[in-house]
Amino acid sequence: MHTVEPIQWTPAGVVILDQLKLPSEVVHHTYTDYRDVAKAIKTMIIRGAPAIGVAAAMGIALGVQHSEAKTLEDLRAEFPIICETLAHTRPTAVDLFWAIARFKRRFDELAPAASRNGAAGLDGIRTAMVQEALLVHEERRAGDRCIGKFGAALMPKSGRVMTQCNAGALATAGIGTALGVIRVAIEEGHQIEVLVPETRPYLQGSRLTAWELHEDGIPLTLITDNMVGHFLRTGGVGAVVVGADRIAANGDTANKIGTYGIAVLAKENDIPFYVAAPISTIDLSLPTGDQIPIEERSPAEVTHAAGIRTAPDVRAAHIAFDVTPHRYITAIITENGIAHAPFAPALKDLVQR
Amino acid sequence: MHTVEPIQWTPAGVVILDQLKLPSEVVHHTYTDYRDVAKAIKTMIIRGAPAIGVAAAMGIALGVQHSEAKTLEDLRAEFPIICETLAHTRPTAVDLFWAIARFKRRFDELAPAASRNGAAGLDGIRTAMVQEALLVHEERRAGDRCIGKFGAALMPKSGRVMTQCNAGALATAGIGTALGVIRVAIEEGHQIEVLVPETRPYLQGSRLTAWELHEDGIPLTLITDNMVGHFLRTGGVGAVVVGADRIAANGDTANKIGTYGIAVLAKENDIPFYVAAPISTIDLSLPTGDQIPIEERSPAEVTHAAGIRTAPDVRAAHIAFDVTPHRYITAIITENGIAHAPFAPALKDLVQR
Repeated sequence: MHTVEPIQWTPAGVVILDQLKLPSEVVHHTYTDYRDVAKAIKTMIIRGAPAIGVAAAMGIALGVQHSEAKTLEDLRAEFPIICETLAHTRPTAVDLFWAIARFKRRFDELAPAASRNGAAGLDGIRTAMVQEALLVHEERRAGDRCIGKFGAALMPKSGRVMTQCNAGALATAGIGTALGVIRVAIEEGHQIEVLVPETRPYLQGSRLTAWELHEDGIPLTLITDNMVGHFLRTGGVGAVVVGADRIAANGDTANKIGTYGIAVLAKENDIPFYVAAPISTIDLSLPTGDQIPIEERSPAEVTHAAGIRTAPDVRAAHIAFDVTPHRYITAIITENGIAHAPFAPALKDLVQR
Repeated sequence: MHTVEPIQWTPAGVVILDQLKLPSEVVHHTYTDYRDVAKAIKTMIIRGAPAIGVAAAMGIALGVQHSEAKTLEDLRAEFPIICETLAHTRPTAVDLFWAIARFKRRFDELAPAASRNGAAGLDGIRTAMVQEALLVHEERRAGDRCIGKFGAALMPKSGRVMTQCNAGALATAGIGTALGVIRVAIEEGHQIEVLVPETRPYLQGSRLTAWELHEDGIPLTLITDNMVGHFLRTGGVGAVVVGADRIAANGDTANKIGTYGIAVLAKENDIPFYVAAPISTIDLSLPTGDQIPIEERSPAEVTHAAGIRTAPDVRAAHIAFDVTPHRYITAIITENGIAHAPFAPALKDLVQR
């Protein structure tokens, strides 16, 4: 199984698959300016919290690599600007801030030695930043595979598994979180078909998940978001597995709009509901989901579909995420292991592992 | 409040609002040939079971009015052709056959007297058929208003009410069933905003419900179908009111896909869930919802939105209706009164009233 690559570090620059053009066109952009990487994050050419983390890491590395700074002091002055530019892209993406903080720490670690080595020290920092970005990507791939391994054991041996939005390779730059669980389960011999809700208004389900599963040869059936209940009640679904944008200390989970509804309908029909997400998604500073900020986006996405106006000029709401209270979640699957209820101690334990 | 009219009998002919062109264009067609009315039903220029019943009635009246028959015998030969033409439009619309049967009965009632009166008798039948069509329309309006009156008392005094699909004036040629309840509540002083799910794949919510509410000046917010859960949990929704395609003897209700999910999410959040539908929707011959046939339509509607391809060439399911088990339904509102659980005796009683 060859999984699609949404972002790659290459000698020519950072190569990003344009997710806005999928599935009708498969277009890759090669960026050499970090500002273009920031723009790609902001405009959702690349999306999905973990992939945004990788993109931010590569963006910072690109900024440092191509910086015209001649001295460490110049670079030290420019570095926060690079970081700020990448920070001002997607406010809900926790991996973005995690990646930026990591690069700031790494920069501060390297600076004292670099400052003693002149031009060689400056080059050393440039190289180290690129290595750090490659390491972030490699950790992401390894993390997804661990999530997949832990989660596969929870998947049914046969039948259907429902997901939501795109928590796949396109979202993480690995094998995916939710889709990574499904991929590993299939590698291990499970006979699974994936039910893919289209996930309006951006249609990440139909445009991205259906595309990447189809590319991998994984069987799927695409449905509209309002068919979720019907299929959970009558469609032979053995499990639901979704990603997460942020998980509070008590297990409450923010994810793509619609996730809460799926979770309630899964519970109502005695179907296990799993969240698969990297440890970086867990925010122990937030006691509950009530403290998770919910991103609202342009209502024009709701009054339009595929760019075509579908409604009169009326008020529309575009809530991009919802919060699923932990009581609807059967388990949270991370690269460090699986958390079951009570989630507060279990998540704390996983984060500290 | 002036409610939109999907169909009207006028001296110039039958005027039908083109629902295929909404909301981008408001186009009315004036038909003087009953074959054009049949075509309008078939091509879904007019849709919604009760509105189709009114259209069939007006189509027959138009056919009789414009018939070139010089004698009753000529008209008696032409009448079944008119009826057949209207019958061959939407084979599953129960109101269509109900309207045709009613006109056949009425014709047979009038024919003996007419045959004794020559040309005056022929004119009398023409006039009577037109009166019958106006009566069908008037009864539809009155039925909706009764549903509205009964239902309005169940609506919150202020806040939000959620609906699904289009159970409005456009679907019934009255004030609507679910939207009729909301209209009467507003007339009676309730301060209500309507939450309108767009209702993929056909988008009856965004194209039709949002349009007709906006035309009436009723406040609304359009949402995507996957925002339903978020708004029921956090959006100040005081009630849900939806229409029905068929109601089984035990209260299980088939309605537009997505209705079941809304009902479960409403119950989970302690929000009353109401079904508003004419008595003709209740089918006492079906013991439970399991016996209601569920229509599947073209998967191309799911892989496309607004006519644009949004998914790769993958398998898709297009389930057009779902069944909401009666345990999620707070009450069923009809023109004869309100049924509460246990629904079996309550519905039987209402049907016999």
